[in-house]
Amino acid sequence: MKRKGIIIVVSGFSGAGKGTIMKALTARYDQYALSISATTRDPRPGEVNGREYFFVSNEEFEKLIEEDGLIEHAGYVNHYYGTPRKFVEDKLNAGIDVILEIEIQGALQVKEQYKDAISLFVMPPSAQELEKRLRGRGTESEEVIAQRLKRACEEASEVEKYDFIVVNDNLDEAVERVHGIISAVHGTPDRNKEFIEDVRNQLFDLTK
Amino acid sequence: MKRKGIIIVVSGFSGAGKGTIMKALTARYDQYALSISATTRDPRPGEVNGREYFFVSNEEFEKLIEEDGLIEHAGYVNHYYGTPRKFVEDKLNAGIDVILEIEIQGALQVKEQYKDAISLFVMPPSAQELEKRLRGRGTESEEVIAQRLKRACEEASEVEKYDFIVVNDNLDEAVERVHGIISAVHGTPDRNKEFIEDVRNQLFDLTK
Repeated sequence: MKRKGIIIVVSGFSGAGKGTIMKALTARYDQYALSISATTRDPRPGEVNGREYFFVSNEEFEKLIEEDGLIEHAGYVNHYYGTPRKFVEDKLNAGIDVILEIEIQGALQVKEQYKDAISLFVMPPSAQELEKRLRGRGTESEEVIAQRLKRACEEASEVEKYDFIVVNDNLDEAVERVHGIISAVHGTPDRNKEFIEDVRNQLFDLTK
Repeated sequence: MKRKGIIIVVSGFSGAGKGTIMKALTARYDQYALSISATTRDPRPGEVNGREYFFVSNEEFEKLIEEDGLIEHAGYVNHYYGTPRKFVEDKLNAGIDVILEIEIQGALQVKEQYKDAISLFVMPPSAQELEKRLRGRGTESEEVIAQRLKRACEEASEVEKYDFIVVNDNLDEAVERVHGIISAVHGTPDRNKEFIEDVRNQLFDLTK
């Protein structure tokens, strides 16, 4: 069965581990690709254009918007972030599932345009565990940790807008759970119209 | 996370292998139970009351209907078949997922009453393969094979009413696919209200 790729939108609290899960998932299975966002912010040390982000100017970004070259975009702390359409559609047409790590506004924009996209929300097993992980990084000030928890508290009100939650209690199991969800949704009748129609025609031929 | 069981309704063409898949699934994972139907037909040689079916009289069956003791029932070749409610609800409350092998009419009755039930339709990889398997049993007359294919042809028009299709190309993979689908649907926000609410309250406490 030839299958078309689907879009998987992934959000989650900062510190819940969504980036780690998605990196492990794409490393383990070659049916997935991580979408690369375009941004107008400056590269940080170690970031490579076309790997972490496509780094573009404000003018280039606005041109992308105008040409409908982004499937979603949002402003965040004085900078634009968006998902280039071409990369996503090339992968989908090649049968690759594309993973977008974006926030709720972008997630809703994507689901509006791609009716068969699915959305996942990554959660820690508890808020205490989230705090522990944020603190365990050892890189964030108390103030930043407090900000992230406050942001998580706001985001928590949106969880019901997602199709699935993924509890990240154990990295390996969380990766398999995400893979399981995506494999499952490939099995809806809507995503297998051609196959169903083929079997119907074969049955019709056999019984006529 | 304590989880409540869900109902999985399974239909499929005769010969597609749904019975074999479900037996293998329940043998492999103890989170599943196969529902046992009540029927008014006589036991066949080797069938045991309470294992293949609950064998009951017409009067007993009609009493079950009257008392709302069945979650679905249908008449088929002069006999009643139905799913006793108590068995199903006891399992669900114990966190066990209950599998019902029933046809489309029953499937729709169940989904009407249990909004979070899911339905699967088991298909062969092709109609030719289905015919081959029916013939391979070596027990059916040409007439019976033709009847089953005709019935499959009719059932094929209902596939879109199911939530998922499962292609049975390889028994082991089909079992894992069914397990994957059920695991995935346990992850919808609707089925995890309590957990989401807990994390919300914890976040609120941490940030107040």
